[in-house]
Amino acid sequence: VRRVTLLTDFGTSDGYVAAMKGVIAALAPGVFIDDASHDIPPGDLTSAAWTLDGYWRLYPARSVHVVVVDPGVGSGRRPLACEAGNHFFVGPDNGVFTPVLRDVPDARVIAIENAALMRLEVSATFHGRDIFAPAAAHLLRGAPLDSFGPAVGDAVRLPEPLPSQEAGLVRGAVVHVDRFGNLITNIPARWVGRDARARVRGAVARRVEIYSDGDAEQLLLLTGSRGLLEIAVRNGSAAERLGAGRTDEVEVWAESASWSDPAPE
Amino acid sequence: VRRVTLLTDFGTSDGYVAAMKGVIAALAPGVFIDDASHDIPPGDLTSAAWTLDGYWRLYPARSVHVVVVDPGVGSGRRPLACEAGNHFFVGPDNGVFTPVLRDVPDARVIAIENAALMRLEVSATFHGRDIFAPAAAHLLRGAPLDSFGPAVGDAVRLPEPLPSQEAGLVRGAVVHVDRFGNLITNIPARWVGRDARARVRGAVARRVEIYSDGDAEQLLLLTGSRGLLEIAVRNGSAAERLGAGRTDEVEVWAESASWSDPAPE
Amino acid sequence: VRRVTLLTDFGTSDGYVAAMKGVIAALAPGVFIDDASHDIPPGDLTSAAWTLDGYWRLYPARSVHVVVVDPGVGSGRRPLACEAGNHFFVGPDNGVFTPVLRDVPDARVIAIENAALMRLEVSATFHGRDIFAPAAAHLLRGAPLDSFGPAVGDAVRLPEPLPSQEAGLVRGAVVHVDRFGNLITNIPARWVGRDARARVRGAVARRVEIYSDGDAEQLLLLTGSRGLLEIAVRNGSAAERLGAGRTDEVEVWAESASWSDPAPE
Repeated sequence: VRRVTLLTDFGTSDGYVAAMKGVIAALAPGVFIDDASHDIPPGDLTSAAWTLDGYWRLYPARSVHVVVVDPGVGSGRRPLACEAGNHFFVGPDNGVFTPVLRDVPDARVIAIENAALMRLEVSATFHGRDIFAPAAAHLLRGAPLDSFGPAVGDAVRLPEPLPSQEAGLVRGAVVHVDRFGNLITNIPARWVGRDARARVRGAVARRVEIYSDGDAEQLLLLTGSRGLLEIAVRNGSAAERLGAGRTDEVEVWAESASWSDPAPE
Repeated sequence: VRRVTLLTDFGTSDGYVAAMKGVIAALAPGVFIDDASHDIPPGDLTSAAWTLDGYWRLYPARSVHVVVVDPGVGSGRRPLACEAGNHFFVGPDNGVFTPVLRDVPDARVIAIENAALMRLEVSATFHGRDIFAPAAAHLLRGAPLDSFGPAVGDAVRLPEPLPSQEAGLVRGAVVHVDRFGNLITNIPARWVGRDARARVRGAVARRVEIYSDGDAEQLLLLTGSRGLLEIAVRNGSAAERLGAGRTDEVEVWAESASWSDPAPE
Repeated sequence: VRRVTLLTDFGTSDGYVAAMKGVIAALAPGVFIDDASHDIPPGDLTSAAWTLDGYWRLYPARSVHVVVVDPGVGSGRRPLACEAGNHFFVGPDNGVFTPVLRDVPDARVIAIENAALMRLEVSATFHGRDIFAPAAAHLLRGAPLDSFGPAVGDAVRLPEPLPSQEAGLVRGAVVHVDRFGNLITNIPARWVGRDARARVRGAVARRVEIYSDGDAEQLLLLTGSRGLLEIAVRNGSAAERLGAGRTDEVEVWAESASWSDPAPE
């Protein structure tokens, strides 16, 4: 009983995702195929990396996670397979695995070069079907990582903006806007106290515990599901309210200056 | 071979749904995880309840149905587990199970309080991952309902508008607008005869059997897939045509007054 | 271990798809149910046929492919079951199986008439739940095709525009626009040389191998994943750029007139 997850920017209405599922099912019939998402904005590597980071650890050991957000398909960019933390990953070498490689220093990464583990004909435009789906299926059937190709020591990593702190002021950035319009920052919630305030786009949010605290007018600052600070409004979209989005700066400080020395990570 | 269905307002592009799938798969590896929908409008409890009502009975006995439309996550609202009609349900106590509790008077409802059946750390913002997914997995593995917490006798129910009839006139309301723009009412089709007419937003629909009856100009009144009257247009959206939506009033009468005494439920 | 794929225009937010899954799971519990797509534009038979064509062959033998894009539901149009290329198909007789019947001359097509293989009550508006899902489940359980009803020799086929060539000029049409805004034509890439140019809506695209060739301003002509020419722009939507869509004419010629005699199919 093994599972494979699929994360793409394909949408579903063209049949691209179903083609990948068919290839996997044909090679590894008894496998569970879970849709993670096919709604990543086209070509948005940062969003793909963010999304993957939220689920892979939660899956059972030895699951295979396929990511096909691949604007450079067919170009020189390498197709990768990776083993990290007893999970497997398959996808293009364009940074989508950044959070995995950051968190698992001893990850093994190889370039998929063995044509025997690809479809017979490999198109220049759909490696999801022709390279990544077959690779996932072969991993699920137990093919050793080494059998795919040579080790890679310089997999592409996306820049990850880091938060900083100085004199009681924490500076960070919005790194993701979720479906509800919550602005998720790169600032660990444990850095700040319960009386924190945050400023984004000139507006100030006050610290609360849950979305339903406060009234509909207020901007809320709370601990998101990955332990990062996020800015929200009750029953609405903070992103729309503020016209805010990814890369916007966020400043956080203590209303009472009571946590002047926040603990660094 | 057991199945769990997932119904949320999460969309898929943030990885929230995939996180729930991972948690379930890690605890109950051989389980089939079926996406019901993740496109419920954010926070729309009525829509979630409507959607759930359309499929749970059709699933095999002992399936587990997870519903996470949860604007009050982290607040005092209770997390519930429920056994009804030999099915199981998991989700917040905010009314999403209204149609189940209405139809199954002897449903057993408990509040999930046993921390041993939750994730080790429970966030204030993502009970889908931390409480509901683990609860679903434990139910699938056979944990008895009692093991989760104490019985609840006052689960929240949404108001359900009831149709009425008087002197040959049936009054009801639009309770759902589906993807095709069909206006689904709360009026049982068996209440009315084959010569019925309906009025909504000042426009009149005539009774037909199927969507392709009549021409593109006409408003059609037909029996929907759950036995309720619905108002449609051929190859188009009645909702758009009329500017109509949920809670709009609907009146139905007999063209020939031949069913002056429709049978009450 | 058998698989069924679901392709519909239902969206997911009304529970129609989940209802079909429940019916299948109740009759054929151990079956894998794969979502192909539920985002086909409402009633768009051409799009459904195109999408199906992209994945069915890739699935394992004896998979069942359900297609419910069915604007004529409840009318006289026949419900069909089909065996072709060692795959099974279930859906309305409205042309959605056109590419299957084109490619598999000895396909066996029957009309589903045996009420014992349907749900007890068949609605006039939701044959996906009442006829097609049960038929899929019975096929997965091994019911012979003959048991469903009589053979059909005149299944509906959609018109399929064919490309032509004359004096070094190839004429075709856009047959699909995918999520990325790529304009997919009906012209086989093998018909044209490496120096081909294409014209659509007055704009000219030059032949490249991969999406990331050329700069962001250029229109690109490349071989799509099904071996057909497609027109794209790098990191953008050719459909939006040109205001182009399905049925638009496409002309292709050799810049150097070096392939004046392209091979017919």
